[in-house]
Amino acid sequence: MDGSDMYIPTFQDVKDAHERIRPYIHRTPVLTSSYLNGLAGCEMFFKCENFQKAGAFKVRGASNAVFGLSDEQATRGVATHSSGNHALSLSYAAGRRGIPCHVVMPRTAPQAKKDAVRGYGGIITECEPSTSSREEVFAKVQAETGADFVHPYNDPRVIAGQGTCSREFMEQMEDHGGAVDMMVAPIGGGGMISGTCLTLSTIAPDVKIIAAEPEQADDAARSFRAGHIIADDAPDTVADGLKVPLKELTWHFVSNHVTDILTASEQEIIDAMRLTWQRMKIVMEPSCAVPLAVILKNKDVFAGKRVGVVITGGNVDLGKLPWMQN
Amino acid sequence: MDGSDMYIPTFQDVKDAHERIRPYIHRTPVLTSSYLNGLAGCEMFFKCENFQKAGAFKVRGASNAVFGLSDEQATRGVATHSSGNHALSLSYAAGRRGIPCHVVMPRTAPQAKKDAVRGYGGIITECEPSTSSREEVFAKVQAETGADFVHPYNDPRVIAGQGTCSREFMEQMEDHGGAVDMMVAPIGGGGMISGTCLTLSTIAPDVKIIAAEPEQADDAARSFRAGHIIADDAPDTVADGLKVPLKELTWHFVSNHVTDILTASEQEIIDAMRLTWQRMKIVMEPSCAVPLAVILKNKDVFAGKRVGVVITGGNVDLGKLPWMQN
Repeated sequence: MDGSDMYIPTFQDVKDAHERIRPYIHRTPVLTSSYLNGLAGCEMFFKCENFQKAGAFKVRGASNAVFGLSDEQATRGVATHSSGNHALSLSYAAGRRGIPCHVVMPRTAPQAKKDAVRGYGGIITECEPSTSSREEVFAKVQAETGADFVHPYNDPRVIAGQGTCSREFMEQMEDHGGAVDMMVAPIGGGGMISGTCLTLSTIAPDVKIIAAEPEQADDAARSFRAGHIIADDAPDTVADGLKVPLKELTWHFVSNHVTDILTASEQEIIDAMRLTWQRMKIVMEPSCAVPLAVILKNKDVFAGKRVGVVITGGNVDLGKLPWMQN
Repeated sequence: MDGSDMYIPTFQDVKDAHERIRPYIHRTPVLTSSYLNGLAGCEMFFKCENFQKAGAFKVRGASNAVFGLSDEQATRGVATHSSGNHALSLSYAAGRRGIPCHVVMPRTAPQAKKDAVRGYGGIITECEPSTSSREEVFAKVQAETGADFVHPYNDPRVIAGQGTCSREFMEQMEDHGGAVDMMVAPIGGGGMISGTCLTLSTIAPDVKIIAAEPEQADDAARSFRAGHIIADDAPDTVADGLKVPLKELTWHFVSNHVTDILTASEQEIIDAMRLTWQRMKIVMEPSCAVPLAVILKNKDVFAGKRVGVVITGGNVDLGKLPWMQN
């Protein structure tokens, strides 16, 4: 399917997704820190999707895809080739529906990641660590099983599911003195940012949407300035959830609704991550620290504003924390 | 003051404390984990005081003491000789009232602890690392300043303040299907357990109260069985908030209202701590892992029950996590 064929989800799809997935997700809390507010010079509201089922916001989109399948399609299961939070989330959602979830992963992937996918009931088929092998093995799995492919982000069902996060956040802000002025989320493939754009452009069009990206994987920022998708081959960053490129559907939302994409260095990301753990007492992934890192780096942009921040996930290897590798 | 002279706080003191401290504390969330429930074979509700102001429940008792002072007394400030969460909490509360907080700490205390106390505005006077020096220096500070001594736990104002935690928890349980059958909290000096006893014996006398203690600092468990306070000289445990002995006021509550005191080994505590970080995505102190450790070790005691668990604090050195020292 190319961009011109792709269905662009609407806010009605977000509302439908919300009804569909509500039994399978947490309404995650919004936390604040007066210390971090003082440091940043703005008022931040952290939407804690690290507390979400399967440990990340991705369960919203995955559940929407899984529970939106017809009974007939569902019996054949779902399939994906992520090795990160999307694979965990899709496995979790498929398990809740009682259908198979096939995950194609490189045989070289860390054992901990394979164990985590299997822990949620995912069925792993290994491929060689190359794009050609992955595509070949994935095609074979799909042909044999008839499973429905759920892309980690370039899928209207997934984006509509991710859009429930900022809908929930805006409802919760009624208990926190009303709407925010700006919303900041990390950007990798752009699934969370696209869902945020979809929801806020309908229910709160005045809220500025800022994407936060690692300097070392700044393809979205360069795409944004160039006006077309630029995909890097193999970016390397501690924020390992953000290495993937934009695709046509997420590019649609990013190019139409994002105000700016700001970047932070590896050290700034690690510092912001450690600071959040230390002061907010939450376990979160390096990817989630990129928003705070860009806020602390661009204080003038956020000065005096009310700023929503999406903490996207909490699946980290506690034996390998980035500040302990230095 | 000895035991016979000491005022024993009542539930009215807890209600008064709650009104007094409400502007200065967080109403911390109650979190659940279906994964941990499955592992433990009971339904657990975690009261997350690691998200509390100054990072621990101790701010409840400290704030009650500080904001209960007369204006005249308040001008002379408060004083203590803790080097842990009580010192941080008392410094925070004094700062909110705009009065001095004097903290006597051994000159050998870690620089990070001194910095944290100063970060909250505490004024440190150093002593030698001995009880005699501490008492001498503390008496001098008190004589010079006229500051009010706020003991970390053997103080009716502090215990009444800690009692607000389980009051808040029981209110929150109305959104979680009603009361619990049991409440588990760590025990060191017994401040949190005493506040829990004070509140629950009045508003929910059927709830069994279980204290959780490190095997390597099991003086409270031995006191409980012996029927009188046993104080150890220098217990050593990773749960460093739990090394202090019971005192007369906390012994009153422990001996009258606690159902049992269960213990866990160092490795069981570290495993429970890491498990909680990994699955619940929260940063908490080793001391807070003792309840989960004893629950996992004594599954028959908790089987099928609804169990409240107090996560007491989140002030850890992220550069020195116990599973990284092995």
